[in-house]
Amino acid sequence: MSQQAASKPKSAISPTRAEDYPEWYQQVIRAADLAENSPVRGCMVIKPWGYALWESMQRVLDGMFKSTGHRNAYFPLFIPLSYLEKEAEHVEGFAKECAVVTHHRLIPKSDGSGLMPDPEAQLDEPLVVRPTSETIIGEMFAKWIESYRDLPLLINQWANVVRWEMRTRLFLRTTEFLWQEGHTAHATKEEAIEETLRMLNVYADFAENWMAMPIIKGRKSAAERFPGAVDTYSIEAMMQDGKALQSGTSHFLGQNFAQSADIKFLDQAGQLVHAWTTSWGVSTRMIGGLLMTHSDDDGFVLPPRLAPAHVVILPIIHKPEHAETVRNYCQKLRDDLKAIAYHGGALCVEIDERDLRGGEKTWSWIKKGVPIRVEIGPRDIEGDSVFVGRRDQDARSKQSMPRARFVESVRGILEEMQHGLLERARSFRDANTKRLDSKDAFYDFFRDEGSGFALAHHSGEAEVEARIKQELGVTLRCIPLEDEEGEGLCPFTGKKSAQRAVWAKAY
Amino acid sequence: MSQQAASKPKSAISPTRAEDYPEWYQQVIRAADLAENSPVRGCMVIKPWGYALWESMQRVLDGMFKSTGHRNAYFPLFIPLSYLEKEAEHVEGFAKECAVVTHHRLIPKSDGSGLMPDPEAQLDEPLVVRPTSETIIGEMFAKWIESYRDLPLLINQWANVVRWEMRTRLFLRTTEFLWQEGHTAHATKEEAIEETLRMLNVYADFAENWMAMPIIKGRKSAAERFPGAVDTYSIEAMMQDGKALQSGTSHFLGQNFAQSADIKFLDQAGQLVHAWTTSWGVSTRMIGGLLMTHSDDDGFVLPPRLAPAHVVILPIIHKPEHAETVRNYCQKLRDDLKAIAYHGGALCVEIDERDLRGGEKTWSWIKKGVPIRVEIGPRDIEGDSVFVGRRDQDARSKQSMPRARFVESVRGILEEMQHGLLERARSFRDANTKRLDSKDAFYDFFRDEGSGFALAHHSGEAEVEARIKQELGVTLRCIPLEDEEGEGLCPFTGKKSAQRAVWAKAY
Repeated sequence: MSQQAASKPKSAISPTRAEDYPEWYQQVIRAADLAENSPVRGCMVIKPWGYALWESMQRVLDGMFKSTGHRNAYFPLFIPLSYLEKEAEHVEGFAKECAVVTHHRLIPKSDGSGLMPDPEAQLDEPLVVRPTSETIIGEMFAKWIESYRDLPLLINQWANVVRWEMRTRLFLRTTEFLWQEGHTAHATKEEAIEETLRMLNVYADFAENWMAMPIIKGRKSAAERFPGAVDTYSIEAMMQDGKALQSGTSHFLGQNFAQSADIKFLDQAGQLVHAWTTSWGVSTRMIGGLLMTHSDDDGFVLPPRLAPAHVVILPIIHKPEHAETVRNYCQKLRDDLKAIAYHGGALCVEIDERDLRGGEKTWSWIKKGVPIRVEIGPRDIEGDSVFVGRRDQDARSKQSMPRARFVESVRGILEEMQHGLLERARSFRDANTKRLDSKDAFYDFFRDEGSGFALAHHSGEAEVEARIKQELGVTLRCIPLEDEEGEGLCPFTGKKSAQRAVWAKAY
Repeated sequence: MSQQAASKPKSAISPTRAEDYPEWYQQVIRAADLAENSPVRGCMVIKPWGYALWESMQRVLDGMFKSTGHRNAYFPLFIPLSYLEKEAEHVEGFAKECAVVTHHRLIPKSDGSGLMPDPEAQLDEPLVVRPTSETIIGEMFAKWIESYRDLPLLINQWANVVRWEMRTRLFLRTTEFLWQEGHTAHATKEEAIEETLRMLNVYADFAENWMAMPIIKGRKSAAERFPGAVDTYSIEAMMQDGKALQSGTSHFLGQNFAQSADIKFLDQAGQLVHAWTTSWGVSTRMIGGLLMTHSDDDGFVLPPRLAPAHVVILPIIHKPEHAETVRNYCQKLRDDLKAIAYHGGALCVEIDERDLRGGEKTWSWIKKGVPIRVEIGPRDIEGDSVFVGRRDQDARSKQSMPRARFVESVRGILEEMQHGLLERARSFRDANTKRLDSKDAFYDFFRDEGSGFALAHHSGEAEVEARIKQELGVTLRCIPLEDEEGEGLCPFTGKKSAQRAVWAKAY
């Protein structure tokens, strides 16, 4: 039964990671049928397998947001230009990459060659397709909040947003992307900071315990802050090429947006004061991060807890007279598996009855990253056993197991895979992270090894960051919240530094 | 305990339905805190209570789509002008109400008074914000479909769409709205028609069994078809003012879009032929329909199966020394209730501990439409009983029940309410539906009674429809799929008619 894989090349994805990492990324997406570029510049189509993964992620995150007291709402896609202008840094940050709606009607061109925007239907004030919603949500918050009794106001929105990117890449950077954006208002600075960190922790929990993606939580330097924020916090993950991926951000906005949108409330002392706000978001970019954390040269690898299908059953039918027996056996197994609870739901199981050669069928699921494949033919049925292949093991190996034992142990296998993926990613990250204490060592690290995380002290000068970015293409990813070492000397200025920062090339 | 309601006016909503129906509609939305107009022309903000209802509806519909074999995906927000132009009727139908993106950057105005679209960043080809996605999805289908083995292709998308409406109304007609759009491709005409009707039936099932909204399934006349469709089917519901609301549509698109997007496949005989496609959608408009079907002069009424909260518990604490006892009792009741299964989930229960007067608190939940209110004070606890108010009964009445009996019967009460709402709505509709066999009777019906459904024969002439629309503001809503009467004579032309059609004023 294993000869079907024998004729396969060494890896299912070409090129391999080692050969051409960026192209490998594109090919994994294509082989897993996750998404593709659309004919609309920079916009992707998320295909069913990719969207099912996004739905898994949404379901878990949404539960986390709700259990921390947030409620979903929906705000307009369009933002009037004048709103965007209210917060100076904010508009500066987004004006260069906005989709601008200027007309509300099309009319035929005079030469009959098609349609054009109707000059009579030009908008008095152009509308921007939201790149983020602080300004429009702030405007509503100002209406809704009157007294301290209305606070905290804890809102989340699942939405599409548009940022006109010049160079795009599926999931990682697209003109339109899907995300959630949390927006909250609080009576005090302390509560707002607490909320900012609470949601950073929610993201960290999600990344590590669901995506199996180890992350570093930290604060951004001023240069890397969200436009308009007082402080931006992020979770940073290391991809298999050693580059960093910022996978989620949480912003303490101070009173900046409360002032520009005039969000005021009567406090307990009867004073009319500005609220303190936060915002936080993760997007379909995380799918790119998940892919680059776990996938291998055979394709996509799904962490079991987020997999849209945990087990795929592949009936092996060489002779028509076996068809019914095999099909019944497979359906019985599926039903038994679907009765097993797994992380707030039940196991998702598919039977693939497509009329394809066995090898092609098996490889299609390997490339899609399904955690467990089960092959069942007449001989297995005779012995009441199944052939089990695990996506975290060599794709060419599989083992025969008594059916009953497989059903009993499937949940344990999935959990073992989940933990194994996290551990493997953590080991990779740790192996590619170096403490560096001189400028030369720092420059050598990024010049020679090319990538990885450098932990180096930094005395805080923006010019140092700017020079390193220019000379090495390396940015200060974050100043970790968890730091055991403490003070040291900045290798670039010789001045005192409170702690090491994480530096890396980044997506 | 009931004196708290005594000082209330006759109805919680002013004006009442009888006094001013359109204004009553707005006030119910406001009182239930479902949504509000945004500062962006024609766009609404869906507030947490309204969005939670939408999430309930989405969850049920999404399950129905998946169990009929559909998979979710996501397609770009923007549609290039040239795509829209490909299907002649389609572009004709949507060109007049499109939001058009013409620029991708903003720059400061020369007088420093703000920002403007950068003339240097004008798009070569304008992009239309999707009013519906047949054209862009058709383009992708053409890439994905090669052979009959790829069919049927059954896709659904949850998305926002934009149609530049001149007169807008919360939920019923907004510039931006949320919806789902199903898009499918099939090998044969028969399969595509079968799919079109299958999804119409899914909508009908959802409307009647979840929204408790009786509907008539039928086919649209040519004048009311979706632009580009061969046949449009709809479900039509009667609102409490006797007007019709088209609540969902399912379109058999024939080969029109397959031809314009070139969706071809190799059939089993090896011939390259065009596919047959369908599309179908329901939107946040349904929330307006749900509201106008069940709500009363005290506000919103939620059918239990879709209610974001089934039971709200209102602790009555007049003396601080009772606080802990009452709170513990309420929490115990909540936990008991939350353990009760209800339609694929569990009962949703809230405890309202806000520091508000009892009457104000109770009325806020009545206006929000929560099916069951439970009031609990120290005296109730002594007798281990609770005071129960049902939203389908007079808001001023409530009855004491032993706690245990309430817990045992709560699911039965909710189901009784669900069926009662459907029955009440059906009786209302039937009482306001008339069979009319002469032109005079038809004109009198709409002139005198103003509204309701008229069942009248129609021999099919578009001019008759056009005249009736012009003279009475009445349209042919649909030609019912279920018809027991059969043939008759058209009162407008005297010609033979195959069956009666449904005529009404409509939203």
